Amino acid sequence: MTYTIDLNCDLGESFGAYTLGHDAEILQTISSANIACGFHAGDPSIMHKTVKLALENDVAIGAHPGLQDLSGFGRRIMALSPREVYELTVYQIGALYGFVLAEGAVLQHVKPHGALYNMCAQDALLADAVAEAIYKINPEIILFGLANSQLITAGEKIGLRTASEAFLDRTYQSNGMLTNRTETNALITDEKIALQQVKEIVMLGKVTAIDGKKVPMNAQTICIHGDGERARQFAKKIPTALKNEGIAIQKVHTFL
Amino acid sequence: MTYTIDLNCDLGESFGAYTLGHDAEILQTISSANIACGFHAGDPSIMHKTVKLALENDVAIGAHPGLQDLSGFGRRIMALSPREVYELTVYQIGALYGFVLAEGAVLQHVKPHGALYNMCAQDALLADAVAEAIYKINPEIILFGLANSQLITAGEKIGLRTASEAFLDRTYQSNGMLTNRTETNALITDEKIALQQVKEIVMLGKVTAIDGKKVPMNAQTICIHGDGERARQFAKKIPTALKNEGIAIQKVHTFL
Amino acid sequence: MTYTIDLNCDLGESFGAYTLGHDAEILQTISSANIACGFHAGDPSIMHKTVKLALENDVAIGAHPGLQDLSGFGRRIMALSPREVYELTVYQIGALYGFVLAEGAVLQHVKPHGALYNMCAQDALLADAVAEAIYKINPEIILFGLANSQLITAGEKIGLRTASEAFLDRTYQSNGMLTNRTETNALITDEKIALQQVKEIVMLGKVTAIDGKKVPMNAQTICIHGDGERARQFAKKIPTALKNEGIAIQKVHTFL
Amino acid sequence: MTYTIDLNCDLGESFGAYTLGHDAEILQTISSANIACGFHAGDPSIMHKTVKLALENDVAIGAHPGLQDLSGFGRRIMALSPREVYELTVYQIGALYGFVLAEGAVLQHVKPHGALYNMCAQDALLADAVAEAIYKINPEIILFGLANSQLITAGEKIGLRTASEAFLDRTYQSNGMLTNRTETNALITDEKIALQQVKEIVMLGKVTAIDGKKVPMNAQTICIHGDGERARQFAKKIPTALKNEGIAIQKVHTFL
Repeated sequence: MTYTIDLNCDLGESFGAYTLGHDAEILQTISSANIACGFHAGDPSIMHKTVKLALENDVAIGAHPGLQDLSGFGRRIMALSPREVYELTVYQIGALYGFVLAEGAVLQHVKPHGALYNMCAQDALLADAVAEAIYKINPEIILFGLANSQLITAGEKIGLRTASEAFLDRTYQSNGMLTNRTETNALITDEKIALQQVKEIVMLGKVTAIDGKKVPMNAQTICIHGDGERARQFAKKIPTALKNEGIAIQKVHTFL
Repeated sequence: MTYTIDLNCDLGESFGAYTLGHDAEILQTISSANIACGFHAGDPSIMHKTVKLALENDVAIGAHPGLQDLSGFGRRIMALSPREVYELTVYQIGALYGFVLAEGAVLQHVKPHGALYNMCAQDALLADAVAEAIYKINPEIILFGLANSQLITAGEKIGLRTASEAFLDRTYQSNGMLTNRTETNALITDEKIALQQVKEIVMLGKVTAIDGKKVPMNAQTICIHGDGERARQFAKKIPTALKNEGIAIQKVHTFL
Repeated sequence: MTYTIDLNCDLGESFGAYTLGHDAEILQTISSANIACGFHAGDPSIMHKTVKLALENDVAIGAHPGLQDLSGFGRRIMALSPREVYELTVYQIGALYGFVLAEGAVLQHVKPHGALYNMCAQDALLADAVAEAIYKINPEIILFGLANSQLITAGEKIGLRTASEAFLDRTYQSNGMLTNRTETNALITDEKIALQQVKEIVMLGKVTAIDGKKVPMNAQTICIHGDGERARQFAKKIPTALKNEGIAIQKVHTFL
Repeated sequence: MTYTIDLNCDLGESFGAYTLGHDAEILQTISSANIACGFHAGDPSIMHKTVKLALENDVAIGAHPGLQDLSGFGRRIMALSPREVYELTVYQIGALYGFVLAEGAVLQHVKPHGALYNMCAQDALLADAVAEAIYKINPEIILFGLANSQLITAGEKIGLRTASEAFLDRTYQSNGMLTNRTETNALITDEKIALQQVKEIVMLGKVTAIDGKKVPMNAQTICIHGDGERARQFAKKIPTALKNEGIAIQKVHTFL
């Protein structure tokens, strides 16, 4: 018996003269790229380059819209209305879609970034706004969201295919939610534990919470990070380790 | 015998709390709207509203990309490379395309704004960059450019349909170029003369230059302005006056 | 016996090609101007012009820093740390100070704008950050804040002179707080009631809450608005009406 | 006999989540820091940190205003009027001045960045605008400009102290101007030649042009760069090498 999982990573987060991340390296190991759309990071030049680079590496392309807060990297919560969230999502998906169309390619998915991702995980109205933005642009686009979050619910409700996302380097609570980053045990820094967590998710549909409890975790895509030295090491080694365990890494649209 | 012309106007140039122009009023008299895409003016909310308003008024939708210079309203020349122009054009067309797709509508045309329009009128490489951006996104989109300019040449070369643009409130030189705005006789302020100029262009394919010479002027679309009190008056009266002369106002894609 | 009050208004909130408010008109009736500093509104050109206009009208100049959210006009709450608030406040005060110094003038006060004003009214740490920013730039600058708010407390604690602000067109609760704008009775639209409220505040140090209770209201400056037609009418008539009641309108630094 | 020179470097050019340069390292070897002011690079947080770091390293602080073109890093020429240049310069100097005043420090100098530097080197009206902005804020501030450029002329005309700048890693033409970066021999990559060029400038007031001619070069400050690996090596070694040659490195205000 074989298992399949999608590996996604946030890419194209450089800006102008500023370089962030190791896109060329990461693209060799993942199956889906979330490309920044110019609001929290990225610019037209970076988007152009990253779309082409993803295609050259046969990696599926997704839009990664964020809050319009470049100096805060889209990580600071803002009080936005559902209509405002709908509009900034349409704008950014469209902008990336331009580059995707120009290369004759396909937009596989959309994954909100940072504060927008977290806001949509908890607020059903904002989640609906993102789901509606995607659906109205193209109902074939897949919505990526935190497993068990409002975003997944919103996507299913409107009729989108969704991919629930789990993390290899974050710990989970017994209620299935991520441990808050402010907690000392929020991050997984040991490569073996990270690999073990992914295996458990992919093979058993479960995750071991920090209190030892087994929690159901139905995920189709695993988020890896490309910034920071440890993340980079994980990104290098985990994909090979997964393959060695008989887990195939595939673009999510091929098995959803 | 009947004559047909397209009337276009720059719209959606408000931003956030700021209102510019009289979009609802103008949309009642024009056939094609050039909608700002967030770089020189416009924002996701304004774009959303303007696309819907254009559809309600049965006006064809175009993208109006500009330089990334909100405080200068995209009117200040910047030294950009063809690649940079290609990328900012793809980005902005894409962003507007998002709203157009979300409404199940069609993107009829693209018209560069302000300094970008002028830069592309004279610089063949920048004009090629804009034409390529449009063509690669969708070769059915029509390119609007100054009559007899490099932009029209670039569009034809790559295989786009083009619409040459003439002005009702600007005077022309005997070489077919617009009189520079710094000249005292650059603007036409008399409504009758403006109407006469449009009639001559539409019916005879000519324009009377400021030295009295008749110059060939092959135009499929006439630009009217919506800001300023006089422009607003022109926009109100000229369309009716044209109809009274037997000139039909039609979306350019219907007769190109 | 005579009474004295300062009248302040938010000014310089235009941006680039966009005009907002009626600055030249309002400057004839107020004593203190809160000038936007380029984050929520305003730009270097508008700031330059507004500083000069205030000086020509013998109106005291204040900095009006806001959140870096031009498309939301600084009205959307953002999750910022005290350090971030300190830094954006120093930056914006400094930017306006540049124009003030260039004209050989004096910076009388600082009043935070919109969401920043509201965040600092309630959050003691953010209020401290704003007070520290002002104090470290120049301890002679006066801090404007909502009467009875954390901002006034923070200013007094660090050793700044403070001016408590009351509103002529907003109603109050019996706890001395403003009625939330979402309530139907939040705004005062009758000019006589507005005038009566200001008189009661200035002459008696009290305000009549919406339930009829008399609440202590110690205010040195009254905020008037310059946008919207009613606000504009209030701004025209209230100052004269106050003078007729024997209430002098003076820059706040002259009597604090 | 002893010689003295100022070494300056552009610093504080990080932005939000993006890091650029090696500020902490460079600050150990230079005497004057040109700190970005938020238009072409830098943000309030970076400015705050960089001002404090400069003070800790006993390095003199200067404002480094640039064009409002973050995505182009202020390197793309824009068609600005003298009034626009005056205004963006006042704004940015003021913004940095805020942080300088908040730390009880002194603003030693102003050096325009990138395209603004080049525009002011050649255009007397733009140079006058920058000089006026500085002079009106504080006539004690020193203006840094390319040796023999319009900017130095403008500073002297208005009554500012000026520091003419020479480069250690750029070659010169026989007319005293820099070799254009598009030329293959524009850059000096050999550390010994760079050192030799600085020694010749400091000790003899001359520079050897690429055709071998000796050209007068009166400079009070030498620009070193902090980005790029070679620049970083130069920045590490040149200061020590200069000291070994008996050339003292001093803040320019101490000997101007």
